[in-house]
Amino acid sequence: MIQKLDRTECDSALQALDGWTYSRDGDAITKTYKFKSFVMAFGWMSSAAILAEKADHHPEWFNVYNRVDVTLTTHDCDGLSARDFALAKKFDAI
Amino acid sequence: MIQKLDRTECDSALQALDGWTYSRDGDAITKTYKFKSFVMAFGWMSSAAILAEKADHHPEWFNVYNRVDVTLTTHDCDGLSARDFALAKKFDAI
Repeated sequence: MIQKLDRTECDSALQALDGWTYSRDGDAITKTYKFKSFVMAFGWMSSAAILAEKADHHPEWFNVYNRVDVTLTTHDCDGLSARDFALAKKFDAI
Repeated sequence: MIQKLDRTECDSALQALDGWTYSRDGDAITKTYKFKSFVMAFGWMSSAAILAEKADHHPEWFNVYNRVDVTLTTHDCDGLSARDFALAKKFDAI
């Protein structure tokens, strides 16, 4: 069972990230990435997809042209877990 | 200027496709693709992304795990054009 983080733990983890905010009443985190072009946006998504699969933790994401909206949550715990913050950090590092 | 198709033209073009339906009051078409896994879903998206870039016409799409929701519309004509149906056909052929 994956442990759901409490709000204090989430606040602390969120502060360590750049540009991520809560969504879904605090049960998810979200960020919009903008790129120079569709090719750059999808290139980023391709890298992110590989990291997500490697982590066995997958984003909910929407892309239109140069924009990618990413939402992370952990269905197994109905909220946020350390997995979400770890993947967010990897996405930011791409 | 890209020509916006009228409803009769859209109806005819839509009938030639498989599983696509109107959305946004008929100004867009949409389809949900389901795959066996995230890897299969993103593999399909990678192929679709290349075809989209080649056609210089890009989808609005949402992915969560093995599901991809695709919406096509032509912003330049505020509705549906032949480009949308051509790309939909290519997406189905992948």
